[in-house]
Amino acid sequence: MAPAAQRLARMLDELGRITDEPDRLTRTFLSPAMKRANARVAGWMKDAGLQVRVDAVGNLVGRLDAGQPVGASLADARGRRRAAPLQMKTLLLGSHLDTVRDAGRFDGALGVLLPIVALAKLRRRGVALPFAVEVLGFSEEEGVRFASAYLGSKGYCGKLSPKDLAMCDADGISVSEAIARWSGLTPGRSGKRVGANALHLNSVHGKSNLLGYLEVHIEQGPVLEAKRLAVGVVTAIAGQSRFKLTWTGQAGHAGTTPMGLRRDALAGAAEFALAGEKLARATPGLVVTIGSLSVEPGAANVIPGCVVHTLDVRHARDSVRRAALLKLGRLAAQIAQRRGLKVAWQRTQENAAVTCSPALTAQLACSVRAVQGKSIPLVSGAGHDGVVVSRLTPVAMLFVRCRGGLSHHPDEYAAPKDLGVALNVVINFLQRLAAEQK
Amino acid sequence: MAPAAQRLARMLDELGRITDEPDRLTRTFLSPAMKRANARVAGWMKDAGLQVRVDAVGNLVGRLDAGQPVGASLADARGRRRAAPLQMKTLLLGSHLDTVRDAGRFDGALGVLLPIVALAKLRRRGVALPFAVEVLGFSEEEGVRFASAYLGSKGYCGKLSPKDLAMCDADGISVSEAIARWSGLTPGRSGKRVGANALHLNSVHGKSNLLGYLEVHIEQGPVLEAKRLAVGVVTAIAGQSRFKLTWTGQAGHAGTTPMGLRRDALAGAAEFALAGEKLARATPGLVVTIGSLSVEPGAANVIPGCVVHTLDVRHARDSVRRAALLKLGRLAAQIAQRRGLKVAWQRTQENAAVTCSPALTAQLACSVRAVQGKSIPLVSGAGHDGVVVSRLTPVAMLFVRCRGGLSHHPDEYAAPKDLGVALNVVINFLQRLAAEQK
Repeated sequence: MAPAAQRLARMLDELGRITDEPDRLTRTFLSPAMKRANARVAGWMKDAGLQVRVDAVGNLVGRLDAGQPVGASLADARGRRRAAPLQMKTLLLGSHLDTVRDAGRFDGALGVLLPIVALAKLRRRGVALPFAVEVLGFSEEEGVRFASAYLGSKGYCGKLSPKDLAMCDADGISVSEAIARWSGLTPGRSGKRVGANALHLNSVHGKSNLLGYLEVHIEQGPVLEAKRLAVGVVTAIAGQSRFKLTWTGQAGHAGTTPMGLRRDALAGAAEFALAGEKLARATPGLVVTIGSLSVEPGAANVIPGCVVHTLDVRHARDSVRRAALLKLGRLAAQIAQRRGLKVAWQRTQENAAVTCSPALTAQLACSVRAVQGKSIPLVSGAGHDGVVVSRLTPVAMLFVRCRGGLSHHPDEYAAPKDLGVALNVVINFLQRLAAEQK
Repeated sequence: MAPAAQRLARMLDELGRITDEPDRLTRTFLSPAMKRANARVAGWMKDAGLQVRVDAVGNLVGRLDAGQPVGASLADARGRRRAAPLQMKTLLLGSHLDTVRDAGRFDGALGVLLPIVALAKLRRRGVALPFAVEVLGFSEEEGVRFASAYLGSKGYCGKLSPKDLAMCDADGISVSEAIARWSGLTPGRSGKRVGANALHLNSVHGKSNLLGYLEVHIEQGPVLEAKRLAVGVVTAIAGQSRFKLTWTGQAGHAGTTPMGLRRDALAGAAEFALAGEKLARATPGLVVTIGSLSVEPGAANVIPGCVVHTLDVRHARDSVRRAALLKLGRLAAQIAQRRGLKVAWQRTQENAAVTCSPALTAQLACSVRAVQGKSIPLVSGAGHDGVVVSRLTPVAMLFVRCRGGLSHHPDEYAAPKDLGVALNVVINFLQRLAAEQK
């Protein structure tokens, strides 16, 4: 095992013990554990030669200014000719440092710590990059404290809206107030001002100064494990629609109502669930999930009069997702009509798909092939900080195999060997980018 | 409208206002409202010439001893020859006086009050029956207070078990203690003793002294309404099996787990629900119901890892129900195997079917044809006091149409005209029985 991968695994272990709750890992937006985690990661950043700051929304930023062009062999004449403008550019690498409740230690943390170890390794080798790097530890991605995700990356990118700032946590503390307590800064009514206060990025860098954003993350799915590969390249983050469906029929006595006279809301919902599954199986890349379902009145001897369930539909191409939704709408209406039920749809979430940068993704795939021999494209069904950062600069994502596809669970696990592969891919990618930028 | 039917409707209204809860009808086992209800019904019983007692478990019993054979035309020589033994026989008529929470005013009460009005009408006509009659207002059938049904009829029949007596209500009061507080009697450890204390029936009458039991009840289903008939004759009370099924799959991320790699517990349960519905539709008289279902973890973005649901299967013939259960077991196993799920069955209730007395039922059907012109056989999918009383004496049941098949709801309703038909059927039945007993 490479020493760097072992070191990374130890850092993940250590960070995973910094928690707001005893006996399990929970680290939420602007919590005491977040402060301790930022301090620990800041120490590792400094060891790797990064300059560290924490912005107003708790994002940890470790910056390494551009040095000499990378590697003697790459430092040719063409490279030197463009060294000056390249030195003004910044590559972003990162993920989030918050967690879900009772979390695993890889989700988020891996994408912050891996770049630190990669940069430390390049430094030990005496390799300087011809562009600046910022390693980002976003303070909020999981949506635990405010039931709304991406507060960290939104703050970093200057995209926090007044609506975001007004949201309150379970104790009635608003995002504004939480930020004020954390940073001493009182954000104005405009989210832009928070962003501007928090981010030297938006003032120091313009979009044109950014090379892009790379996020390393555990896959949270079983594809890499099934394909027996350590890492894969994300080509898109799926668009997502989420609904609450309400099926209304007629409650009735389970013993006295003949089958032919029933209007069973659960039977309608069950038929729809299977129709949704069938459509998803027949449409490559489409996932359709009913994750939550409740029955009223909910007694063993009463025919269900009402069923409420969630519906989550995702695909990397928005057109495919929209077509699936139209079809699901028709199917639900047909089922309801045939069964004498009513069905009502309420949209609760809608995110367009994010396409990863073709240029960065091609580079990343070259690095994966160089290290692993083979590169497969993956679609991220989960949302990531890259969704928000893509509004600022092109993004690329590297997925690392995790055992059983499990995440958001203390048993979440990525093998040190796979961490080593991911580390080498990122190092190769940084050097490749340095060389290609010439 | 016949005055007797109007009187019955008014009595039902009045009794429906005697409740333990303000603004809704709730009258549970041995409650203060039960005491007031017993007192009011006792008054009506006395007005009809019945001798009234309340037994240890709160059952109200109104007894009319045998008089002269009914009607001059029936009082022939053969009748007189067998008058002495017939006078020692007792016919039971009744139902229960407790209710569910937020109940309607017909369920139970109708079967107690209708016989009182019928006997009063016969008395006014100067008709004496050649056998004794006991009108029974059972104190418990709905299972609200102790989550166990039939405490009243079990007590009347001497069938309360030590297990029954040890059950506790939400306040930790046992059935024994509740009976002691109500009656001053302290039941022994054996339920038989309670029965013996409570029932002069078991000491005064043996099985051979009983002519049978007739229960009038609202249908609680939509068949009579669909057939446009006021009343129908119950041929059997369906046997019933109830289970808790647990489907175990694998929770996973709704966005990152491809359809082909899912082990979705809810999809399995949905497929089983539809298979159960299909089997029931294809099997005359079979009803299969999933009334309660819960999903774990139950989040919109998590594939269900576990689903627990009830299964209620009923049929008038035990052999059909058993065959259906075997088939459902095979279907569940096939679905689980195909989907990589586990399915576990836990039996929570099992009641054999009760076949109504062919002789009494034939008499009752004759009375229905005499009054209504047509008689249809019905199966009771719901349980009734007759299930317990059938262990003591042959039973017959008359169902009365209720609007929309609705019961256990304040909107529960049977039209006075239909009450009149039922009243005339019971009067005809009593006279027919008197004549046939000669």
